[in-house]
Amino acid sequence: MSFSVTILGSSSAVPTSERYPSAHLLNVDEHFYLIDCGEAVQIQLRKFNCKIGKINNIFISHMHGDHIFGLYGLLSTYILLERKTPLNIFGHQQIKNFIDEFIKNFGKGITFKINIIPVRFRKREVIFEDDKISVSSFPLKHSIPVCGFLFKEKQKLLNINKDKIEEYNIPLSSIHKIKNGENFELPDGSIIPNKDLTFPAYIHRSYAYCTDTAYYERIVDDVSDVDILYHEATFKKSDVAKAKNTFHSTSEQAAKIALKANAKKLLIGHFSARYKNPDIENLLNESIKVFPETYMANEGDVHKIELKRMQRK
Amino acid sequence: MSFSVTILGSSSAVPTSERYPSAHLLNVDEHFYLIDCGEAVQIQLRKFNCKIGKINNIFISHMHGDHIFGLYGLLSTYILLERKTPLNIFGHQQIKNFIDEFIKNFGKGITFKINIIPVRFRKREVIFEDDKISVSSFPLKHSIPVCGFLFKEKQKLLNINKDKIEEYNIPLSSIHKIKNGENFELPDGSIIPNKDLTFPAYIHRSYAYCTDTAYYERIVDDVSDVDILYHEATFKKSDVAKAKNTFHSTSEQAAKIALKANAKKLLIGHFSARYKNPDIENLLNESIKVFPETYMANEGDVHKIELKRMQRK
Repeated sequence: MSFSVTILGSSSAVPTSERYPSAHLLNVDEHFYLIDCGEAVQIQLRKFNCKIGKINNIFISHMHGDHIFGLYGLLSTYILLERKTPLNIFGHQQIKNFIDEFIKNFGKGITFKINIIPVRFRKREVIFEDDKISVSSFPLKHSIPVCGFLFKEKQKLLNINKDKIEEYNIPLSSIHKIKNGENFELPDGSIIPNKDLTFPAYIHRSYAYCTDTAYYERIVDDVSDVDILYHEATFKKSDVAKAKNTFHSTSEQAAKIALKANAKKLLIGHFSARYKNPDIENLLNESIKVFPETYMANEGDVHKIELKRMQRK
Repeated sequence: MSFSVTILGSSSAVPTSERYPSAHLLNVDEHFYLIDCGEAVQIQLRKFNCKIGKINNIFISHMHGDHIFGLYGLLSTYILLERKTPLNIFGHQQIKNFIDEFIKNFGKGITFKINIIPVRFRKREVIFEDDKISVSSFPLKHSIPVCGFLFKEKQKLLNINKDKIEEYNIPLSSIHKIKNGENFELPDGSIIPNKDLTFPAYIHRSYAYCTDTAYYERIVDDVSDVDILYHEATFKKSDVAKAKNTFHSTSEQAAKIALKANAKKLLIGHFSARYKNPDIENLLNESIKVFPETYMANEGDVHKIELKRMQRK
């Protein structure tokens, strides 16, 4: 029952020798969701032992090259590996042309279907659901249309205590009801209260991805109480004017959003290549002052959210 | 007066965590020539401290994705760095469409000119010359049109012995003549023979790049006596049928070409991802049996050709 994010790329538009263009991989119970697809994403996926063939859904935040140029290589590899499973790509409607050009020029022998799902960039909406998660998109503020994504685990049922199944001889037909909170009636008419039969449900976990964006308070609602907020932090505090001009954020601004949204943990990334080690640490320090639970996104890092049970009321 | 090749990518179409798609960088006396442009080439260039801004000429062997998908990222970075110098791209005429699509969708604010120079793929021809080198293209044998490239240093002049300039009070006007082999006449009419004034010229160096290709003996003439022959070796000997079917070569076949061409050194690369360490060493061993001076292309390796003077006749 894992819920983890692997950082594949943490640089802004110009990569460095260590920081690659934007891409994250979300693993929810061995279902894999790729978020953005910067150049060399397929190499990063291999480097960090991610299951490249198990990605069925790709979410693209916007149409800048550092978020999509890895798609061509990844799709080519899927063709060579004779992928069969359909691949869903969520993004701006312009991505259709980008993919069509690929298919026309490099798609010979393609063995799988690519479904392009255009995302509306003007309002929050649920764009995807499966049995593990739901995904919402919401507008960010940048030089071109950009959306953030909120990945939210489905509400989990109560866990039944297996010892009690035996003790009370509970039939299969009653188990689902008990998991949904019902009590159980014994043949003699006496009632076993639900709390004696179950453990509290696990809390559903969440992860939000917000890049590229200027400081934009409207997203606070969209990401409120999220477990991990990934927010871009292209610039340090003293470069706030540059951030404003280019519709990016400082790490301090990312921290302010995390604080207002009551996020549990903040991941910052999309760092400008102008900051080298150890200077880049200032981005972290300036964020921590506002929001102590800040971490830098670094290639290969895996950020896990542990399962926790709800409190009984 | 360097002449060296840096390996940026040595994998075949599907990269691995260690081997990137095809790209080499040739450095001739700090003039930089990029050969093929596989995904992540800009990251590799940075990783190996290559001067990304000093590349003015890019040679593309063919239109398969693993040889060109790095172009989009590289061009984007040039735009962000506000490159001014024109960039020449040599390749199949189809590359124009590929670059046009880039300009249309991602070329906003471009500050430099891209010159596309279409290469004819049917016959050997000189496609480029500057004051350092000439570059010829010649046909290879693959599933789509592919050409190899031969990079040849210009014939160098004799080197003048500076001590003799002082000794005989040689005027500037005579120096170029002496470098071209003329004798020098003293004011008293006596003749100083050229060999007493000069050191022998340096031998011009050469490098050939041949990928992707089936075993194709016709190229032996095109690359004869080359200092370094880079020849693809996608497969091992026992997979020779696969090599034939896919228009690729085995490492043994690469070695046969090197032997017939009287190359001084063979570099093999474009390895299939199916061969892992240490199994991949067999590719090298099978080549060495035929051509002992074989080396594996590995990311970051720099293969230098030292300057040597010609022998006096």
